[in-house]
Amino acid sequence: MKNNPIVLCLILLLAGCASQPAALRGSGDLGVVIERAAGRVEIVDTSKNAILTKVSGLGDLSHASAVFSRDGRYAYVFGRDGAISKVDLLTGTLVKRVVQAGNSIGGAISQDGKLLVAQNYEPGGIKAFDAQTLDLLADIPAYYGQEGKRSKVVGLADLPGNRFAYALFDAGEIRITDLSDPAHPQTQKFAAGKQPYDGLVTPDGRYYLAGLFGEDGLALLDTWKPEQGVRKILSGYGRGEQPLPVYKMPHLRGWAVAGNKIYLPAIGHHEILVVDTRSWQEIDRIPVKSQPVFVMARPDGREIWANFAFPDNGYVQIIDTLRDQVMETIEPGRAVLHLEFTPRGESVWISARDDNKVTVYDTRTHRPTATLSAESPSGIFFTSRAARIGF
Amino acid sequence: MKNNPIVLCLILLLAGCASQPAALRGSGDLGVVIERAAGRVEIVDTSKNAILTKVSGLGDLSHASAVFSRDGRYAYVFGRDGAISKVDLLTGTLVKRVVQAGNSIGGAISQDGKLLVAQNYEPGGIKAFDAQTLDLLADIPAYYGQEGKRSKVVGLADLPGNRFAYALFDAGEIRITDLSDPAHPQTQKFAAGKQPYDGLVTPDGRYYLAGLFGEDGLALLDTWKPEQGVRKILSGYGRGEQPLPVYKMPHLRGWAVAGNKIYLPAIGHHEILVVDTRSWQEIDRIPVKSQPVFVMARPDGREIWANFAFPDNGYVQIIDTLRDQVMETIEPGRAVLHLEFTPRGESVWISARDDNKVTVYDTRTHRPTATLSAESPSGIFFTSRAARIGF
Repeated sequence: MKNNPIVLCLILLLAGCASQPAALRGSGDLGVVIERAAGRVEIVDTSKNAILTKVSGLGDLSHASAVFSRDGRYAYVFGRDGAISKVDLLTGTLVKRVVQAGNSIGGAISQDGKLLVAQNYEPGGIKAFDAQTLDLLADIPAYYGQEGKRSKVVGLADLPGNRFAYALFDAGEIRITDLSDPAHPQTQKFAAGKQPYDGLVTPDGRYYLAGLFGEDGLALLDTWKPEQGVRKILSGYGRGEQPLPVYKMPHLRGWAVAGNKIYLPAIGHHEILVVDTRSWQEIDRIPVKSQPVFVMARPDGREIWANFAFPDNGYVQIIDTLRDQVMETIEPGRAVLHLEFTPRGESVWISARDDNKVTVYDTRTHRPTATLSAESPSGIFFTSRAARIGF
Repeated sequence: MKNNPIVLCLILLLAGCASQPAALRGSGDLGVVIERAAGRVEIVDTSKNAILTKVSGLGDLSHASAVFSRDGRYAYVFGRDGAISKVDLLTGTLVKRVVQAGNSIGGAISQDGKLLVAQNYEPGGIKAFDAQTLDLLADIPAYYGQEGKRSKVVGLADLPGNRFAYALFDAGEIRITDLSDPAHPQTQKFAAGKQPYDGLVTPDGRYYLAGLFGEDGLALLDTWKPEQGVRKILSGYGRGEQPLPVYKMPHLRGWAVAGNKIYLPAIGHHEILVVDTRSWQEIDRIPVKSQPVFVMARPDGREIWANFAFPDNGYVQIIDTLRDQVMETIEPGRAVLHLEFTPRGESVWISARDDNKVTVYDTRTHRPTATLSAESPSGIFFTSRAARIGF
């Protein structure tokens, strides 16, 4: 029987079946949850609120973030150790991993999806890679001053036209690099203020804002009118006058734009600042439970959800943007590190690191609808980011 | 040799290969082009600017539109003949087709992706279907007045919370139906003005606007403050005073929101109206080549692209939103019916019905980068719509 060709044939057929690819499925409702301590990501399905599989071997994932390929099939995970890991969400495999720096703080993907850009602390600068192969295409050191020093880079965000905006912590600059021809990057430099520590672009890609750690205010660049240079806004909002100790640097990528208002964490204060995007003046301050870290708008802008620094990192507060008041306080677990809304905002996923869980909330009722287990979960990222500007 | 088991085995293996599903791929860069006369759609890839396959048997596709499943795998095509066709973009097959009305004018999908809603002229009303099975879940006739008459429904748009806003052409009303429990739909009614002919919601899902054919102005409903009712805006913009003959009803879904401004076709005029979304007052009028039909914002809001009614339907004009002036006029072919931007706006696809082609333009250079053949193409729809509010 061993040599029976029919049996052989069946074995071959079965082998063929076994090596068939994963089942066909759309990628629009997928995402990753970072398991920071395990160097692993969970691949999740936001339609079924389910974990599909886990992918390991991604290295040091403390402070990790992710962007997605244009087709939504691949996640690119940027690790603190300077590695970029390309994960296939459909097959649940690690396709490639390259270590491109000693200390990295995230990345972005170009408007056309062809370039992946990493922002590095050490050595300071940005690097561009082919999104398909992860081959290095451009190395742009963040040199500044006379002695060829290199600055840490923070606040990297994609702009239309395969351009990228970012800030130089040590140099006090905002830079925009045009990578539409990666072999000949063009960089514009703008004096920004002392120690920009993070940045964001508005959802239309027009305004780039950098938070300043070294002075009392923020730096604003209108990328449609770069010739006007950087404008200082919110000078004297309180960062400088006897600031509270800062337990955790707020994440400005978490700044929330809702209608004509931007909501941002007041560094060191138990407040969220409300800024009018027409005048760029502060129009309100909302007292909150503690020092806010992520301040995120529900996609329709009707609510803002915020988490807090230690020791109040077990709370999330929900703010009504019509009244600019806290309407509800929830407790999603110990050490809430991140939250991510589903593409059209019916749900929000919240990670609680020290409870090893991710909770899905219905944003209409503010009640949990599902709980998923995860080992020390931190960042949560959904593929819908691939279709947005400034992530 | 015929009876050789090894050959048999190879044949079986090949058969196995042939019956394998389509190759795995992400769905984030897919879309459909309506071939209106052929009752067919092309499935296209916006990363490669390529036609992947064609799917036929969809019926009367004049004035057809499409929405997408939450995962981006399926397109739901709404035909003028009242049919909904569910097309699998990954396998290139027609999964199901139901005829649900005699005369239909498009549809929408709920925030959570579970409900598909059609807006019907005949019989007038909306109907909700299970997005997976296309089973009817709710039938909501648009009754009005004393005699149980039914109005044509236009301008259907999804709102957060599985609600839908739409307008009743004959009844002069805007209605919002809450379908969060499809077995018990809840409908609110608002007097809107004479003959609303189309509508849209702003990208955040807050404001619903209906164009009025029967009077000189538009109806605005703030869905965050529905108790305030409908407010008439732009009264006297010119619709009423000796209007030009209207060659083609403008599509308000084409209204463009860029920053704090809405750009909308001035019905009957060779103008685009610019409206400030803070005051809802007209702040400018941009003279254009002819009567505008679709007035679309590039996703970053930096440019507006508009096409025109017959006999000027061979032109597209590009407007700079900083200066609110036409900056370029292009000729993408005869009978330009629609245009669709790629998710982050690096390209725009433009259909030219009478030249049987779709041209892809680079939005930075305004030059064509690819041309695809299509038989009498009309609407173009990309899967990124699945992640947006109000489509």
